[in-house]
Amino acid sequence: MPGNLQNLQLRSLVKEDNTLELSLMEIEVPEPGPDEVIVGVEATPLNPSDLALLLGPADISSARLSGSPQRPVVTADIPSKFMKMVAARLGQSLPVGNEGAGTVIAAGSSEAATALLGKTVGMAGGEMYARYRCMKAMMCLELPAGTSAAEGASCFVNPMTVLGMVETMRAEGHKALVHTAAASNLGQMLNRVCIEDGIELVNIVRKAEQEDILKSLGARYICNSSSDSFVKDLTAALVSTGATLAFDATGGGKLASTILSCMETAAALSMTEYNRYGSDVYKQVYVYGFLDKSPTTLSINYGFSWGMGGWLLTNFLQKAGLQKMMQMRARVATGLKTTFASHYSREISLLETLSLPMINGYARQATGEKYLIRPQM
Amino acid sequence: MPGNLQNLQLRSLVKEDNTLELSLMEIEVPEPGPDEVIVGVEATPLNPSDLALLLGPADISSARLSGSPQRPVVTADIPSKFMKMVAARLGQSLPVGNEGAGTVIAAGSSEAATALLGKTVGMAGGEMYARYRCMKAMMCLELPAGTSAAEGASCFVNPMTVLGMVETMRAEGHKALVHTAAASNLGQMLNRVCIEDGIELVNIVRKAEQEDILKSLGARYICNSSSDSFVKDLTAALVSTGATLAFDATGGGKLASTILSCMETAAALSMTEYNRYGSDVYKQVYVYGFLDKSPTTLSINYGFSWGMGGWLLTNFLQKAGLQKMMQMRARVATGLKTTFASHYSREISLLETLSLPMINGYARQATGEKYLIRPQM
Repeated sequence: MPGNLQNLQLRSLVKEDNTLELSLMEIEVPEPGPDEVIVGVEATPLNPSDLALLLGPADISSARLSGSPQRPVVTADIPSKFMKMVAARLGQSLPVGNEGAGTVIAAGSSEAATALLGKTVGMAGGEMYARYRCMKAMMCLELPAGTSAAEGASCFVNPMTVLGMVETMRAEGHKALVHTAAASNLGQMLNRVCIEDGIELVNIVRKAEQEDILKSLGARYICNSSSDSFVKDLTAALVSTGATLAFDATGGGKLASTILSCMETAAALSMTEYNRYGSDVYKQVYVYGFLDKSPTTLSINYGFSWGMGGWLLTNFLQKAGLQKMMQMRARVATGLKTTFASHYSREISLLETLSLPMINGYARQATGEKYLIRPQM
Repeated sequence: MPGNLQNLQLRSLVKEDNTLELSLMEIEVPEPGPDEVIVGVEATPLNPSDLALLLGPADISSARLSGSPQRPVVTADIPSKFMKMVAARLGQSLPVGNEGAGTVIAAGSSEAATALLGKTVGMAGGEMYARYRCMKAMMCLELPAGTSAAEGASCFVNPMTVLGMVETMRAEGHKALVHTAAASNLGQMLNRVCIEDGIELVNIVRKAEQEDILKSLGARYICNSSSDSFVKDLTAALVSTGATLAFDATGGGKLASTILSCMETAAALSMTEYNRYGSDVYKQVYVYGFLDKSPTTLSINYGFSWGMGGWLLTNFLQKAGLQKMMQMRARVATGLKTTFASHYSREISLLETLSLPMINGYARQATGEKYLIRPQM
């Protein structure tokens, strides 16, 4: 059994000499506990959230290679002004990789664990950039027959985020949604889910070609923030949909504030008498990403019934509880080839993740590149 | 009965010719319904929240007087760039005055109403800058024997706001508070309540003399935002108190963001392992005022467990429910001469509120002036 299986795990280390070091570490595959299984990781995507942990604030153009061809070591400089940002991880060799899929090759003694032997499962929880991952059986998502590991590799981060947004909307009493950076992979997925569920979605994009993508996917409300008529267009869409909840992937700049302001304008249209404290319609923006790194600016001209805050999938799932999470996962499993399908621009081996051309390519993720790591290759 | 009583009510009107007009309107005092009483208003304060409705964005230096000595009319220009802010109140002659106190001079037929006849009561709900106010009996706060109308005039806005902050802290699971503009009348009241209730309060002020005021009132944690060591001082106070909720009266600028950032630094001190999403300690800032009119700037370096939002007493009371509100009011009534005492720099008649020297004086409210209107004078 796995006792003599050798694992290879990608590690990211921030060192005191202002460098980031990426390497492959050989570790032993543990004996699975009664409730655990060992999964041979076959496919694991490089998400923006993975890159943040993998590369931190390192200057990729300074990356250099050492070590051996089979055990390469990549070193890159971290500008000293960014060292404070990573103080908390200094000296810790951290495994990387939020989600993935593979085949269960060994199982503990429990019924739940042995039932998964030989099955293809999806996983989340870190440490996925590795040949093997030891998992609690109940945390494995058994993929439907005929679904490959590659098709199940992105079964968690984007699908659960999208469903989490919709569940948040319901739990907090809103009736429609606003989404920024809406032409992203995640945005397209949210658009599909909202169409399926009959939820009105106001899609905010920055470019004409992004409008076209969403139009071709059947989106009904698309507002271009680069347009002169953006505020007017957005307000009209908010009036039509009654959306009072937005998820913002950009974080910085004025967009979140503009959304709240347009929501207030839309709400004020149905007020029958003047209230200098503004409408009592509650308006919320959750920030879940930071595509725009500039400071966030609020012009609070939207009364007192508003909120802004961070939104993180793991925090949402903790609040939502296990049963809700299981329901969401089941829905994802049935839609992995349709609603929740992901597409990759390139497949690479674990070894190749540490080659300089690849690392330079990661930076292009924002423009639509998405890599899939194949640790068994 | 009051059928032939003439009321005099202060009105504020924004007109299409870009002017604001203040006047005294003669209206009839209505016959009270079964559950209503007529209160002769004897004392009503000029709060910052009243001034916003009274004067709007008018340029006070342009104020001019017309009308007669007994029915003066004040007219002031509104800079055209501000007309959009007041579009919703255009052409509406609005009564003013959030709170006040007086004697019940007539009552409807219900037991609750007749029981108040001749009593001194505190009130809130607008339209207080008037000789008389018709009120629901159950909305009147009967003042303890020996408490004058002047002592009860400010029984609502500041005391209920302060208690609302403490109740919000409890309801949302925080254990200590941060308050900005902490040397204000409201801030001093909050300091007294927190000392009474054994709640740790971090007081943020801008000036050395404000530090002195709070020190003399027994405040334990005082941080001066003008000091070079502000971030260090605030973080230390947050570590000591565990405060994760702040009420911010300034609104604009960077202060709210700095508070969240220091809260995150304090929370991170007790984290045992690195989490690139930040701590999972939830941090909240509620904005309840706008002393700083500049845009609000957030540097979101505090993970994903944070929220910012508007806080308004009326919204809080609606959520808290009638029973909680009654409890809070009862506490205020017993503390009007101590914990919840207000002090005034000047008493003026209803007629005098429309004299130019007084109107120019209102602008000094921010520096500690507080006027009390005496409508029966």
